[in-house]
Amino acid sequence: MKTNATSRRSIWVNKDKPEIINIIDQRYLPFELKICELRYPEEIIYAISEMQVRGAPLIGVTAAFGIYLAALKEKQSPDLQIRLQKYSLQLKSSRPTAINLAMAVDMVMERLEGKENPMEIIELTFSTAVNFMNQEVDACKRIGENGLPVIEKIYSEKKGEPVQIMTHCNAGWLATVEYGTATAPIYLAHDKGIPVHVWVDETRPRNQGSRLTAWELEQHDIPCTIIADNTGGHLMQKGMVDMLITGSDRTALNGDTANKTGTYLKALAASDNNIPFYVALPLSSIDTSLEEGVRSIPVEIRNENEIHYIEGLSPEGKICKIRTSPPGSKALNYAFDITPAGLISGLITEKGIINASRKDIISLFPEMD
Amino acid sequence: MKTNATSRRSIWVNKDKPEIINIIDQRYLPFELKICELRYPEEIIYAISEMQVRGAPLIGVTAAFGIYLAALKEKQSPDLQIRLQKYSLQLKSSRPTAINLAMAVDMVMERLEGKENPMEIIELTFSTAVNFMNQEVDACKRIGENGLPVIEKIYSEKKGEPVQIMTHCNAGWLATVEYGTATAPIYLAHDKGIPVHVWVDETRPRNQGSRLTAWELEQHDIPCTIIADNTGGHLMQKGMVDMLITGSDRTALNGDTANKTGTYLKALAASDNNIPFYVALPLSSIDTSLEEGVRSIPVEIRNENEIHYIEGLSPEGKICKIRTSPPGSKALNYAFDITPAGLISGLITEKGIINASRKDIISLFPEMD
Repeated sequence: MKTNATSRRSIWVNKDKPEIINIIDQRYLPFELKICELRYPEEIIYAISEMQVRGAPLIGVTAAFGIYLAALKEKQSPDLQIRLQKYSLQLKSSRPTAINLAMAVDMVMERLEGKENPMEIIELTFSTAVNFMNQEVDACKRIGENGLPVIEKIYSEKKGEPVQIMTHCNAGWLATVEYGTATAPIYLAHDKGIPVHVWVDETRPRNQGSRLTAWELEQHDIPCTIIADNTGGHLMQKGMVDMLITGSDRTALNGDTANKTGTYLKALAASDNNIPFYVALPLSSIDTSLEEGVRSIPVEIRNENEIHYIEGLSPEGKICKIRTSPPGSKALNYAFDITPAGLISGLITEKGIINASRKDIISLFPEMD
Repeated sequence: MKTNATSRRSIWVNKDKPEIINIIDQRYLPFELKICELRYPEEIIYAISEMQVRGAPLIGVTAAFGIYLAALKEKQSPDLQIRLQKYSLQLKSSRPTAINLAMAVDMVMERLEGKENPMEIIELTFSTAVNFMNQEVDACKRIGENGLPVIEKIYSEKKGEPVQIMTHCNAGWLATVEYGTATAPIYLAHDKGIPVHVWVDETRPRNQGSRLTAWELEQHDIPCTIIADNTGGHLMQKGMVDMLITGSDRTALNGDTANKTGTYLKALAASDNNIPFYVALPLSSIDTSLEEGVRSIPVEIRNENEIHYIEGLSPEGKICKIRTSPPGSKALNYAFDITPAGLISGLITEKGIINASRKDIISLFPEMD
C-alpha cells in the first residue's frame, strides 16, 4: 500500500540482495518510518518477540523467512537439518499466542523433510517463504474483493455522500503483508473511486488504531478520524456510521469471534442501532476445533503496565513513555473479548461472505463434512 | 473522605482564616495532592475555567463562594451590588456547560436582593455558600444511603465474596464535595464493613477514571482495579461484575441519561449480560424541561487535542504531555453519550431509588403535577 506515495508492503525481500529481508519496525510508527534489514535468523526472532512486526499473518510470514535466513547462515554446517530443527523450536516460542507462527514454521519445515543438499534447502526455504507471503497477499486481496460489494451497495444508497465505516484495532496491511483484512474492502473501494471515511477507534491500551490504522489510512490518502474507544456508541446513535468492519484473532465454528478487547462493545452498539457489523478474516483464523467461542476461546491477559504507561512523542520530538495512573495502582489487561455470532452480520473471507453460523462455516471446510 | 488517612472534602473554608477558601487543585492528581488557597474572586473564576475544580456539583459550590470572596474584596465600594452583578456574569461564563454553575450563582444573587449593608451582604453570601455546600454533601450522603441496600442485597447472595462494582468516569467526592454520587453507596458500604471491589474504567480521553476515581478510592482504602474502557464488556461476559453505577450529567423526564462518553456502551453490555446498571444522581441533574434525552440532550464536542495528547508522569517524575496519534491526524471528541432509559435498572436519588421512567420521575417533582 502507499506510504508517502511509495507503494510498500510490511515485509519484502531486498531487491538487490535477496539474502536480506526488509521489514518496517512498527514500534516507531506513526512517528518514524524505520526500515530494518534482517540478515540473521536471530534478528527474525528479535523482530517477532520485540514486536518490530506484529499481527498474526505478518508474524507467520516473517517466521517463514526466518528459516530461510537460518539455512543461509548454517549452510556450511554438517548437521544443517538438526540446526534448523533447533532454530524452528526457538522461533515458535518467540510469541506465545499467534497460531500463525507455529503453522508457518511447521509448514516450511515439512517441505524440508528428507532434503540434504544445502543449496536445495536454501532454495526451498526461500521459495516456500515467498509463496507463503504471496498467498497471504492474495487471500487479503480476495477478502477485499468479496467485501467491496457491501461498501458499493451502501454507497449506491447514499446519494454521493462518503460511506462511513468504523473499525477497531489494526487489521490493516501492517498486520498482514498487503491490503489487510478489515481494511482490504476499504482500500479497494477507495482505489475504485468510492468515497469512504473511516472512524478509527484509538484502541486502548496499545493504541493500534491511532498509531497504526490511522497512519496507514492517511498514507494511502483515505480520509479518517480518530475517536476515543468510548465514542463509537454515540456516533452510531447519531447515525454517523454506515457499517463496521473488524478483523478476527480467532473465530469458532459457531461464528463467535475473539478480537481486540472492545470489539464486543462496538458489536452491541451496532446491533442496538441496526448497523451492519462485519468481521473480515482469512479461513486460517477459523479454529475448527472449537464448537463455540464465548466460553471456549482462551483470552490472553497482558502486562498491566500497558495500561499504566503510554508511549508517544514528547514536545522535544522524542518517543517516550509516561505513567497515566496513580503510582502503585492496579490494572487488569485482557487483550481480547469475544463477540457472540448473533451480533455479526457476516464473515468476509477469501472464499466469499458467509453468515457467522456453523452451517455456513463448515461449508468452507469440505474435509469436515 | 480519606486521603492518607486524613478526612477531607474537595472544597472547604479555611479553619483559621474564613476569608480563605481551600480547594484541591485537581489538575495535579493523582501525581500530587496540591491544596490551593483562594482569596480573590478572580481566583475562583480561574479555578473553574482552568479546571482546578471540575464536576458540576463542585463547580456550583465553588462559584457560590466566589460571590462571597467578591463581596469581601469590594466591601468598601459604594456600588457593591453593581460590582457583584458584574462579577456574577463573568463567573457564569467561566465554564460553558455546567448547569449547576448558573443555578448556584443565581441562587446566591437572589438572596442579596434589596440588601445594602456590606457586612450583611458578606455574612449572607458566606452563610448561603456554606449552606449550599452542606446541602450538596447531604444529598450525596442520602444517595449513598439509598443505594447501600442494593450493594447489601448482592453481598447477601455472594457468600462473603466482595461485591464487584464497575464505574465509568469520576462521579466521586472530587466531583462533588463529599461522598460523590456514583461512589456514595460504595463508600458507605465499605465503611459499614461490606467488602467491595471497584472496576475503574480509565475513561479516555481525559482519564478521569484512572486519574481521579482510582486515586480517591485508593486513598479511602477501597480495593479497585483500573481497566481500559474496552475491557468492561469482557469482564461482564466472564461474570466478574455484579453491578454498575455511574453518575449523570443530565437526565431527561423519560429517564434517558447523558453521562461521560462510553457510558452507553457499558449499559448495553450490562443489559446483554443481565447485570444491573444504576445511575446515581441528585434531583438537580434531572432536566424537567426535556421529555426525552436521546434526541434532545445536546452533547458537547470538546477539543480534539484531548485525544491526540495525553498527560502523565515522565520517568523523571515531571507531569508532561505527549502526542499519541500521527502528527497532523484528525480526531473527533464527543464528551458525552446518552444511555436510553430502557438500559437503566434504576435511578438512585436523594429521595430514593426510582425507575428510569416518566411516571416515577414526575412523582419526585410535585410541582409538575
